[in-house]
Parts: sequence; C-alpha cells; structure tokens
Amino acid sequence: MKCVTLFRQDDHCWQMFGQDPDKPDNIVDTNQYLVRSGDSAILLDPGGMEVFPAMLAALTREVPVSHLKALFLSHQDPDIGSSLPLWRRVCEPDIKIYLSWLWSSFTAHFDREATFTTIPDEGMEISLTPDLRLRFVPAHYLHSSGNFNVYDPKAKVLFSGDIGAALIPKDKASGSMFVADFASHVQYMEAFHRRWLGSAQARDAWCAQVSKLDIDFLAPQHGLVFKGDDVKRFIDWFAGFEIGSGVAAMKR
Amino acid sequence: MKCVTLFRQDDHCWQMFGQDPDKPDNIVDTNQYLVRSGDSAILLDPGGMEVFPAMLAALTREVPVSHLKALFLSHQDPDIGSSLPLWRRVCEPDIKIYLSWLWSSFTAHFDREATFTTIPDEGMEISLTPDLRLRFVPAHYLHSSGNFNVYDPKAKVLFSGDIGAALIPKDKASGSMFVADFASHVQYMEAFHRRWLGSAQARDAWCAQVSKLDIDFLAPQHGLVFKGDDVKRFIDWFAGFEIGSGVAAMKR
Amino acid sequence: MKCVTLFRQDDHCWQMFGQDPDKPDNIVDTNQYLVRSGDSAILLDPGGMEVFPAMLAALTREVPVSHLKALFLSHQDPDIGSSLPLWRRVCEPDIKIYLSWLWSSFTAHFDREATFTTIPDEGMEISLTPDLRLRFVPAHYLHSSGNFNVYDPKAKVLFSGDIGAALIPKDKASGSMFVADFASHVQYMEAFHRRWLGSAQARDAWCAQVSKLDIDFLAPQHGLVFKGDDVKRFIDWFAGFEIGSGVAAMKR
Amino acid sequence: MKCVTLFRQDDHCWQMFGQDPDKPDNIVDTNQYLVRSGDSAILLDPGGMEVFPAMLAALTREVPVSHLKALFLSHQDPDIGSSLPLWRRVCEPDIKIYLSWLWSSFTAHFDREATFTTIPDEGMEISLTPDLRLRFVPAHYLHSSGNFNVYDPKAKVLFSGDIGAALIPKDKASGSMFVADFASHVQYMEAFHRRWLGSAQARDAWCAQVSKLDIDFLAPQHGLVFKGDDVKRFIDWFAGFEIGSGVAAMKR
Repeated sequence: MKCVTLFRQDDHCWQMFGQDPDKPDNIVDTNQYLVRSGDSAILLDPGGMEVFPAMLAALTREVPVSHLKALFLSHQDPDIGSSLPLWRRVCEPDIKIYLSWLWSSFTAHFDREATFTTIPDEGMEISLTPDLRLRFVPAHYLHSSGNFNVYDPKAKVLFSGDIGAALIPKDKASGSMFVADFASHVQYMEAFHRRWLGSAQARDAWCAQVSKLDIDFLAPQHGLVFKGDDVKRFIDWFAGFEIGSGVAAMKR
Repeated sequence: MKCVTLFRQDDHCWQMFGQDPDKPDNIVDTNQYLVRSGDSAILLDPGGMEVFPAMLAALTREVPVSHLKALFLSHQDPDIGSSLPLWRRVCEPDIKIYLSWLWSSFTAHFDREATFTTIPDEGMEISLTPDLRLRFVPAHYLHSSGNFNVYDPKAKVLFSGDIGAALIPKDKASGSMFVADFASHVQYMEAFHRRWLGSAQARDAWCAQVSKLDIDFLAPQHGLVFKGDDVKRFIDWFAGFEIGSGVAAMKR
Repeated sequence: MKCVTLFRQDDHCWQMFGQDPDKPDNIVDTNQYLVRSGDSAILLDPGGMEVFPAMLAALTREVPVSHLKALFLSHQDPDIGSSLPLWRRVCEPDIKIYLSWLWSSFTAHFDREATFTTIPDEGMEISLTPDLRLRFVPAHYLHSSGNFNVYDPKAKVLFSGDIGAALIPKDKASGSMFVADFASHVQYMEAFHRRWLGSAQARDAWCAQVSKLDIDFLAPQHGLVFKGDDVKRFIDWFAGFEIGSGVAAMKR
Repeated sequence: MKCVTLFRQDDHCWQMFGQDPDKPDNIVDTNQYLVRSGDSAILLDPGGMEVFPAMLAALTREVPVSHLKALFLSHQDPDIGSSLPLWRRVCEPDIKIYLSWLWSSFTAHFDREATFTTIPDEGMEISLTPDLRLRFVPAHYLHSSGNFNVYDPKAKVLFSGDIGAALIPKDKASGSMFVADFASHVQYMEAFHRRWLGSAQARDAWCAQVSKLDIDFLAPQHGLVFKGDDVKRFIDWFAGFEIGSGVAAMKR
C-alpha cells in the first residue's frame, strides 16, 4: 500500500494511504488518512476488514499502533469501518471513535463493545493535541444520511469522504495519488456522483458551506486528491452536476 | 428471539424474527424475515454479526441451515449484513446473495470471498421455487443510494426495509410484532423518517409505485408490521411527511 | 458430513459425525460425537474452527442448536476445540464446557470469555439428564498431559479420544465409519500410536482401567469405531505395542 | 506488555515480551521471543489470540510488522499459536511458519490457509539472515508429542518452550523477567513439571542433549529466564525430578 504525505509542518502531518497493489479487483479501492501530531494520531475512515492487514502493515512503518488515539468514521459503510473490531483489538482500550450520532446503534453491529463519541448534526471540533484542531463538517445525504467531512484549518486539508470520489479503472491508474488534469478526471467521477448522491439540496448546502473554507487539498475516500485550483474546480463542477439518477428506476 | 408467522399456505410461508430480549440496548433492534417454500428458504436482511448467534439459534428451531438457499441484502448497512461472513461460513458454498449492483464492491469489505448476484436499478424477479416468485422492488435513496424492497404477490407481503421503520423505546414495547393503533404508532416513526430519509422525489416515486401493489403486510426492518388498512395509512402518512431534516445542519 | 447412530434407546442416543467430503486434505479428519437425551445434548470434541460450519449444518439437521447444553473437550488440541468461540457464539450463554483443570488457563487462549467446568485428574460423573449419566475417564499423557475419555455405561460406548485413532489415506477409505477387518486396520493406527503417544506407564494404566468396563463401541476422535469383539482386540493390540518413538530423535 | 533485551550484538538481537499487566487472570501468562537481524525477524511462540493485540502493539514499538519474516510454533497448544490466523492477516503472505511435521494437519484447525514449513523429528537449522543461524532442537513429549526448542549458538540463547516453565502467582511476581534466586524459584516450577511432563526417558534424552550446548540464557515460554549458572542448575534439577504424576489417576 502506498503512503504519501499531503502536509507536514513540525510534527503535524497528514498522510494518505491507498492503492494497495494486492487488493482484489472485487473490492472497491479506498484511501485512509492519518493525521499526526507528536505521538498522537487519528485515522480517518480506517477501511474495511479486508484492507486491515495491509493498512496495519503500512501504518506501523510510520507509527506504532500505540500512537493511535482516535478513529473517525465519516459514515456507516462497510468500506469505511468494518475493520473497527480489528482496530479496537490492536489499539489501547481507551481509543476514541468518532461517528455521527445517527449511526452509533447501527455501527454497533460491526462491534457491540465499541464506545462511540457521537457527533451532533452540526458537527464539532476536537483537539487531537493542543496545537492540532480538527473540525467535523456536516455532509449529510452525500451519500449517507449522517455523514461528516474533516477540516484541518492549519494544514488546509478537507477530508471529503465520498464527495469527490472517483472510480478509476485499473488500466487508467497513473500511479499518482493526485489529480493531474481535472478535465480528464471528470469522467471517473461522473457515474458515481450521478447515481450514489441523491439530494440536490444537500449538495447545494455543502457547496455553499465548503466554499467558505480555505482548502489546499480536497481529499476523498476513493480516487485522487484535488490540490490547489482543482479544489475550486471540483466544487464548481459538483455544484452544477445533476445527481440522484436512481429515482428514475421507480418511475416506470 | 421471537418468531411469528405472517403468512402460511401449503408449504409457502413468511416468518419474522426479532425482539431478542437479550439484545444489548446500544444495538439497534432489527427484524429478519425468512421466506420458505418446501426445503428452500431465503433470509431477508440477515442482520448484524452481533445478532447472528441468536438469529441462527432461532432459525434452526424452524429449519436446518442447509435449507437456506439465498440471502438478500436490501442495502449496505452493518445492521443489515455484517453477519454475511458468518452466514456464509455455516451455509452451503453455492448460496446466492442478492444485493444492489451499486454495493457489491463495497459490501465485499464485509466478506471478500462472497459472490454476489447483483440486482439492476429497476429490480428483478426471482423464483425461489417454481411456485414462489419474489420481486425486488427499487427504493433507492430511502435511505440508501441502492436499496430494494421485496414483494411477494402471492403472500401479499412487502418487505420494506427502512421504510416504515420505527424506533420504539424499550418501555413502550407491547410485545406484539404488529402495529395495533396506527395513530399512536406514528410518534415512533417520525424522527427516523424525518432525519434518515433525505429525498422527497424518491419518496414520491416509491409511494406511487407501491400504491399499485396489493399488500396485506408491510414489513419493515425495524419496528412493527403494518397489516390490512394500516398499509394504506402508512403510505398516505409517508407521502405527506416532510423528510430530509439533516440538510439544515449545513445551512448555518 | 456423515452422521451415523451408534446407539439409540428411547430418546437416549449417540450420533457420530465425520468424513466430510469437502474437507481440505491439509486438515486432519475428525469425528464429533453428539450424546442426546430428550431435548438435551452434549457435543464431545466439537472440532476445529475449520470444521465448524459443516458440523453446525450437520448438527442442525438433527437438533436445533438450542438443545446443546454442554460441550466436552478431551484435551487442548486445535482439532478438538478451536471452534469453541464459534460454538459459544451460537449456543445459550449458560452452556457448560467440560475440560481438564490442567488446560483451562491454556484453552482460554481460544476464548477468554469461556467459563470452564474443570475435571479433576481422577475424572468425574455428570448427569446430562436424570436418566443419562456419563463418566469422564482419565487417559492422561495419551497423548495429552490432561486427557479424558467419556464412558456411557447404559449405551456401552467409550469415546476414547486419540486412543484408537487411525489416519486413513483418502484412497483407502471404505465409506463406512466402523472397523470392518481389525487385522487390516492396524496399519492405519501404527504410525500414530507409535509416534504420538509417549508413555508406556500411562498406556498400561489405561488398558488395565478400561478392561474393567463393559464396552460395545470404542469410538476414537480420528478414524473408525471399534465394535463388539474388536474392542478387546484393540485393547490387547495397544497393550503390546511399542510407543514413544520420538525420544530417539534426541539420542543423537 | 514488557519488553526486555536478552542479547544484542550489532543488529542481531533477542527480545522477550511478556507480563502484560492487563492480562486477565484466567489466561495463562506467556512469553514471546523476537529474534532480529537487520530488517528480518522471527517470532517464537507468537501466543494465543487473546494476547495478540497487546503483543502486536508491543512488537510495533520495536519493528514494523513487515519485518516479520517467520513464525515458529514449538508445539500445538492454544497459548502457543491460536493467534496464527491473526498474525497471518497482518504479515506478508509469504511469511514462513515453522512447526513439527506431526502437528501441521492439526494446527491447520487454527488456520486452514496457512502453509507450514514442517520440521523433521531430529530438528533442523535455518538461516534467518546469512549471519544468523537458528537450530530447532527436539524436545518431544515435554510435554507435547512433537515439540522443539530453538538454539542460537552465537547469542547462546536456548528457547526451551514448556521446559523450565514456572507458574508464578501474581502476588509473588517481582517484576523482573529473570530468575533471581534459583532455590526459591523451584517452588513455582515443581507442580508444572511434575504433572504436565510425562516421560522420564524423554527428559533424560533432553538433558543429555542440551548439556552439550553452550547456553547463557535458558528462556521458557512461561515464567522467568535462567541465566549464567542457573542454566546448569535448572538442567540438574530437572534431571533429578520425578515427573508424570498424572498416571496415578488411572491406577485406582
């Protein structure tokens, strides 16, 4: 599994893990993000149980598992968090697990013994260390009913979950983890955004909200990271794209 | 775990399992449905891994596990299907697993080895036995992007997944598995429908679609079963109820 | 997996499960025994985790899992009891688990949450039901340091664990679960008894002890069941066979 | 979990892990040993599944999991190797797993997918790296039928498995991982050696064999490490101690 650094300043850093060459084709590829400050770290969308071994091996090349102080689940999907009981098994018992209040009793079906710190609908701010504050930003219905992004105002990174996701065929992968040419990248985002995301109101509210943020990296859970001007390009594209195509199947 | 029979005619029957008294409070309660015909059976929304032992024990009081020929997952949530690898471990290797095409590579994060029979957006019909046909009816964005109900035209049962779900406080549970008084049941459905379900267009399309079906039992994955006139009462209530309340959190 | 009945009188019965045709070759074949009386049953040497699905499917064709009131582990080996956490997951929480006192803190490494009812060195007697009494008979060092057989004086069955085990090549299997011709069966027992069993004193004490029992079926955990006169033939053969061949490897 | 270094010279080192303060009392305490040379490491008796999380956390404070090139199982017990499928899940797929030929098809009941490199009865030598050679030394019937020690001629460490084991009550633990006063340590070894080990011939052969080795550290899987003159003291004590007390239970 690859590991690239999005941001590093002193001991504050963002690392992105993904594109495991050994991943079977029938499993959707995911990105995992590690935000570190000193000996503390939080893992964003730790991934499915099938990605756990590769992710753990990759992570321990960077930090011992004992540095993990928190996990964050953007929503309830299996590719986001079915690894939860496995992480809990190797982490300290007091690890914090952040999740929308909406999903805590559902996600307990991954792991009944887990204790969640639930996030209210409007989001909240946490301090991983006194110097490192992260904001959980609401992104409900995109696609999940209870869904959060993570914003780091110092690193100017927005972890955007499924928003900005791209499903890139294996033979089209460049090997890089960054969008190189926005225009040609759009084709890999279209089908996903059109079909998976269902609420235009939610999309409009999200675009208005994140347009106010200062973002250098917009980092989704699938596909590639947008940086620099591509961040605004993505928001503009998404704001004008028609979504919710699945409704048509019921109108027959 | 309780087991009640919704419909039985010759060897064709629908059984509902739920309300396990030993279920911990931090886990959302779920209903599982078994549709049988002769020595063949399909389990609808088999449930989370935490409910697997109780569900297996309850199921084997009715049929040996070898009778299970198919599983159906209405969508990708952990309370629907995190038990998948456990069921696959006790069932025949050729068991069929039905799931929206949308979620197969995501749900592989529960169980990489599973082979899914994917359902197209418009749904499809299967024959469990020559006499027993089930129709997978689209219910996308309610709440999941790729989401199906199951309709049995002979038994007149609609398994409606999260549509019609109620979260009933433990001290308000009557012990019955059926809605007794629709008007007083509404209070347990409101918060869930308002917040979890996000697309009014999808809701309208669903109501139009199922209004054409002949339904004696509308059976959700959480809460109680609607029967007789309460089926229409529910559809009418849902058609006029405001949903998507989570968007407001982004409009600050 | 096959199931044959060794003994049945009224509702008291012994059933043997084994010879799963789908078992991979790299896993040693095991026999599991179910002793039933009314709605109560005990499973002797439930088997490894790899045999659990097939064994559970076979068992539920005979009884619901809720009938299982007890498990017995003759000793600590993985093929005997690595399925323990899986069985505990599908059985009632108050299921009894019988095991030598010697191994309880070791076998907790299969399953920390299990509560064992430990058997003292001299063995003990249990009543599965008022009519059905089973005796745990010591067989220490054959091969395990803390090891028990199970004797049923009414059914005249001795479950002998690894004593009497045979490793039969797949192409020599007759399909029957009983020894047909003792003389030709010896070749499949020799290597195992010579190398796995190490203490001639323990063997002598065991032979003296079981010679006093009235046994119609001597039923091992691997290979075939001895019945009728073959029981005495086996005991006589074992009493005169040289064991402990592994010591030689240290005398170089 | 504690970690102490037994030997270090250049990049060749032996580390011992054990005495986890959070270990529940019902689980026997175990020592795990990591032998490293450069970026290669072998883990001796990786432990039970219950100790896996603590052991993994402790290990990743020393090396990334990707450095593990091999596992060694002295014998088939749950406290030795029920963690096998968990280690295989986090290690590279080509990790080597060394085990007596006797137990490979039994230990497959922990993990059917594991590929074992089997050790013949007389033992064998491996090169972890060109500079680091380890010898697997037979110790059959002490207590397991197929059982190996590990000797490192350069570090002069003998990993002795259950030989030399001590079960030390929690309130008698000094906190050190080394035997301080041999005479007072004997009391914690007696019951285990007398009852668990059954073959005086095997013991005699083992004592003769290891007396020829140059040993600075005799390191068992339970209890404390013997160093310096205590190594010979232990071998002499063991040579003269009566074992096999369990046979008496059959002579009634």
